[in-house]
Amino acid sequence: MTRQNVTHKLIESHLLSGRMVPGEEIGLAIDQTLTQDATGTLVMLEFEAMQIDRVQTELSAQYVDHNLIQEDFKNPDDHLFLQSACRKFGVWFSPAGNGVSHPVHQERFGIPGKTLVGSDSHTPAAGALGMFATGAGGLEVALAMAGKPLYLKMPEVVGVELTGELPDWVSAKDVVLEMLRRFGVKGGAGKVFEYYGPGLESLSAMDRHVIANMGTEMGATTSVFPSDGEVKRFLERQERGDDWRELLPDEGAEYDEHVSLDLSRVEPMIALPSSPGNVKKVREVEGEEVYQAYVGSSANPGFRDFAVPAMMVEGRHIRPGVSFDINPTSRQILENLTIESYLSRLIHAGARLHQAGCNGCIGMGQAPATDRNSLRTVPRNFPGRSGTTEDRVFLCSPETATAAALTGKITDPRDLEMSYPTFREPEKIVINREMLVAPAEDGRLVEVIKGPNVKSLPEFEPVPAEFSGPVLLKLGDDVSTDEIMPAGAEVLPLRSNIPAIAEYVFHAVDKKFTQRAKELDGDGFFIVAGRNYGQGSSREHAAIAPRYLGLRAVCAISYGRIHWQNLANFGVVPLTFANPDDLDSIDQDDELALDDIVSALESDEEVTLHNRTKEEHYTMHHGLSKRQVDMIRNGSLIQLVREEA
Amino acid sequence: MTRQNVTHKLIESHLLSGRMVPGEEIGLAIDQTLTQDATGTLVMLEFEAMQIDRVQTELSAQYVDHNLIQEDFKNPDDHLFLQSACRKFGVWFSPAGNGVSHPVHQERFGIPGKTLVGSDSHTPAAGALGMFATGAGGLEVALAMAGKPLYLKMPEVVGVELTGELPDWVSAKDVVLEMLRRFGVKGGAGKVFEYYGPGLESLSAMDRHVIANMGTEMGATTSVFPSDGEVKRFLERQERGDDWRELLPDEGAEYDEHVSLDLSRVEPMIALPSSPGNVKKVREVEGEEVYQAYVGSSANPGFRDFAVPAMMVEGRHIRPGVSFDINPTSRQILENLTIESYLSRLIHAGARLHQAGCNGCIGMGQAPATDRNSLRTVPRNFPGRSGTTEDRVFLCSPETATAAALTGKITDPRDLEMSYPTFREPEKIVINREMLVAPAEDGRLVEVIKGPNVKSLPEFEPVPAEFSGPVLLKLGDDVSTDEIMPAGAEVLPLRSNIPAIAEYVFHAVDKKFTQRAKELDGDGFFIVAGRNYGQGSSREHAAIAPRYLGLRAVCAISYGRIHWQNLANFGVVPLTFANPDDLDSIDQDDELALDDIVSALESDEEVTLHNRTKEEHYTMHHGLSKRQVDMIRNGSLIQLVREEA
Repeated sequence: MTRQNVTHKLIESHLLSGRMVPGEEIGLAIDQTLTQDATGTLVMLEFEAMQIDRVQTELSAQYVDHNLIQEDFKNPDDHLFLQSACRKFGVWFSPAGNGVSHPVHQERFGIPGKTLVGSDSHTPAAGALGMFATGAGGLEVALAMAGKPLYLKMPEVVGVELTGELPDWVSAKDVVLEMLRRFGVKGGAGKVFEYYGPGLESLSAMDRHVIANMGTEMGATTSVFPSDGEVKRFLERQERGDDWRELLPDEGAEYDEHVSLDLSRVEPMIALPSSPGNVKKVREVEGEEVYQAYVGSSANPGFRDFAVPAMMVEGRHIRPGVSFDINPTSRQILENLTIESYLSRLIHAGARLHQAGCNGCIGMGQAPATDRNSLRTVPRNFPGRSGTTEDRVFLCSPETATAAALTGKITDPRDLEMSYPTFREPEKIVINREMLVAPAEDGRLVEVIKGPNVKSLPEFEPVPAEFSGPVLLKLGDDVSTDEIMPAGAEVLPLRSNIPAIAEYVFHAVDKKFTQRAKELDGDGFFIVAGRNYGQGSSREHAAIAPRYLGLRAVCAISYGRIHWQNLANFGVVPLTFANPDDLDSIDQDDELALDDIVSALESDEEVTLHNRTKEEHYTMHHGLSKRQVDMIRNGSLIQLVREEA
Repeated sequence: MTRQNVTHKLIESHLLSGRMVPGEEIGLAIDQTLTQDATGTLVMLEFEAMQIDRVQTELSAQYVDHNLIQEDFKNPDDHLFLQSACRKFGVWFSPAGNGVSHPVHQERFGIPGKTLVGSDSHTPAAGALGMFATGAGGLEVALAMAGKPLYLKMPEVVGVELTGELPDWVSAKDVVLEMLRRFGVKGGAGKVFEYYGPGLESLSAMDRHVIANMGTEMGATTSVFPSDGEVKRFLERQERGDDWRELLPDEGAEYDEHVSLDLSRVEPMIALPSSPGNVKKVREVEGEEVYQAYVGSSANPGFRDFAVPAMMVEGRHIRPGVSFDINPTSRQILENLTIESYLSRLIHAGARLHQAGCNGCIGMGQAPATDRNSLRTVPRNFPGRSGTTEDRVFLCSPETATAAALTGKITDPRDLEMSYPTFREPEKIVINREMLVAPAEDGRLVEVIKGPNVKSLPEFEPVPAEFSGPVLLKLGDDVSTDEIMPAGAEVLPLRSNIPAIAEYVFHAVDKKFTQRAKELDGDGFFIVAGRNYGQGSSREHAAIAPRYLGLRAVCAISYGRIHWQNLANFGVVPLTFANPDDLDSIDQDDELALDDIVSALESDEEVTLHNRTKEEHYTMHHGLSKRQVDMIRNGSLIQLVREEA
């Protein structure tokens, strides 16, 4: 391919399988991985279960930034577990207090031209440095750590040509909100947004992070910026100039789709409750009362995102009754804000300074009061995500949030009676190299610390040649993974503990399900369901926990795509009725049997299901690839990887 | 009385009733009140129910420092309620982010020679300025706000003569830990510790705060320091020199008890898990591994308590694996630490900076991991208070906590290979006057904001002349207020909502109690119990919520002192069996009756209880004062105050 864009260069240089044809599956070599604590514990348990000594990536980093509240032993035990697992497996560890994964990764680890997969949906932020960075489920990240490829569908590349320069009071957040206004929350599905053109000149590497980060909100596979002089300057300031390499699109590079965006015409924008796609001009909603103004998160992590608000409030005071919440995004940014006297200006004006981390962005504190408007620089305002049901969260730039903190109302910052503060980055910033904990040189002697709530991933036996058991539950259509494995404050802290979380399987449907499974005493069982079984959230626990209780096979009319994959990954046979009417013939507690199931899966697309109670036989399809049959034969994908190693 | 000590001068100048004889009840005029958010919402609801327009004190201040996490709407709704109630009733409001009540009160409001009552047990910290300051239950604070006296038993005064000067590496916290080593956690009951002597010279006003604050841990009524030149200097630095007045003990002042403490002989001290009285020399427990080192709280709030750790860690780095948690105690201290470059040193060395407030000291986050040692500068290490059951929390000075952060082990700071940092207070500190919100000039038009979880205190009808109802619950001995009205994460957020919290009355004893009470449809009921009914925590909800459900009278063999008082305060008749054996004659569901109860309570010490089911009569005592009978006749103490107003 001639005249390549940056995205194609990144993919081509990492392509292990497949063709670069939009929609076809490709396998990519992964250079770096990123995990955070809320998803990272399961990733580490999965990696541990693969019995591989060390990560096979060029660099893997684990951040503690989500569960910082520590109401009891569970979160701090998770942190200790992660720290020890990192030492052992060769992963850099960023302890609580260092800040949000994405800006820290950009400051300390991101390298142009590399690929990154992270168990966090905002991993694409690293596209700011000219990386191909994408979010994925925990097991996919664990596999990448084990040196396996990442499989995804080849995306289309949307070329976004930036021209002009941002006017006063308008910043990067307004640019991505303008993109969201145009594309909506689904418009990026199957696409990469690649930014180019003369407008890049006025966007710093952290401004680009803002835009790449929130590409996720459009459903994009990732967003990509070139690695140009600005990236070089950024890395040199981080004392990592040696990590820079140029990565530009070829002259006249080709794109699958074209967008033009004149920065000089962007205005202050705001996403209204409760969707990032619900974007208006700030001026259209001016005057509404504001209870909370919130600065921080991976969607506005840069030094300037705090320095500009600090200059805006200097010599003024926050409107009484407004909570002006400042959430530093990295230790390094916090330290430099302190040294450069920006922090003291914020504190003096009445801001409320929080610890460095994700905090209220993921509902860990800072919930707004009932029926009050909260203006936030965060990436998402899904209903209830703030912790308050029926919340009223708006997404906007730091300038717009600070204007509201000063006036107590939604205010276009251009209407403030002040001139736009002239921000200059400090000549030299303080770099902190000691804040990240390096892995042990030799991890073999490191013991992994597991508190009472951290349990190794259970071993799953290979599927037996012959298999029979009762239908432990018969369900209807559209059963979601929320029904299979609930979330919420009671269950979420048990994510590192499959035996404990298994107590809640099907809790909303049948409180005695777990007890009935346990009474089988290790003998397996079936679940029978209608259409679209396992729709919704991708949580792997919805496959692992029922498997732990003895689930051997699911018989359904159809499946949610990811759950179907998760079932196979963890050794459960997902079967589909050839004749959907057969579903009606099966009742709860019927005894079902599968004869010589592995041979059947290997040799044919059809399998015969025997209902011993009714003395009936049903034809089932499986649709499993050879590799998936191997997973089931071995007990799970993890055990398969272990076998191969 | 000649040769008076400071305590006696303070009491005499505010004495409204009683004699200054240790053990006798005295009534004191109250100049100032302090409330925090965890107790303040009920105080405000009680004050509102008294229907008094404005507080009658010289100054009342309400701080938001406890419930800062805001996992959902309840805490922020409470904050809005408090802010609006303050505007209306004439109370200064300190919003979330301003820091811990006690140091902020000392910086902005404390005045030598004044009395202060607060709904927080560490209110005695204000003794550092030469105030008589004590903690009390919510209703007593509400009454003080209404201009009523505070009643307490005249304390003995222990004169603590301080000589010598503190050696390097030893600070105020070690002094009060040495006091705790000598007196234990009960040794201060019924006493005031008054400090005097040449050793005061080397203790700043905030050092004295440390000592006065933790007098509470000895069970003392309060601790008192003179208002001397150091207090003058402190107030002048706070730009409040006009608030200073001298208050010294008379030459050769008399004390009820004498203690001598040579500061030059105090060593670094530490309280082991899980009592503030379990004090050893640090050197005796050196070498134990440390997981967390925690600086902050009202027990070490001063600028120097953060500046000294900052100097200790400069050019060094926290031991990997140790969480070094820095909890600023006031906005002003945080700002000055920032300006004077102390904060940046802490951040660079790896400290984890939290928001200004009580935080982990009261179990709001920062819980330690399982089986790990946490060294904290906080006042208390009661079991589980950190949020982790079976926690291992030690109490120590900032110097000792920081030494552990550097070495990863319990370390006598004198054994560090460094010289003791020379701390000098900055020439001039930044004062922030705008951080506190003044009440409205005219509160009558201010509307109190009540979110869905904030409910006005219910109105309680006066007791009817004749009264009968069933025994809804019969209980044994030693029923605690925890059994009557549980605490815990599920119930605590409902403290501003009596109808909601009433759903949990006797939850641990009889889950259907509330339902059975409601089925009576407003008709009242009795509770019958054995000895020591209502022992334990002083929570008023244990009287208010059962009263809300219809409780009219309790018949018991004996009572916990405070609960007995709370019952009368909220209009419940607390009766005692003249013949304890009569208890056995009464069964649950028996129909009891009290005839012409008010007249009976007024005219006699005995009351006749009629058991209609058994057709028996029992003689009961009441022991109520005339004023308490008035409370019951009016429905509650609040309604009585309203009548009087």
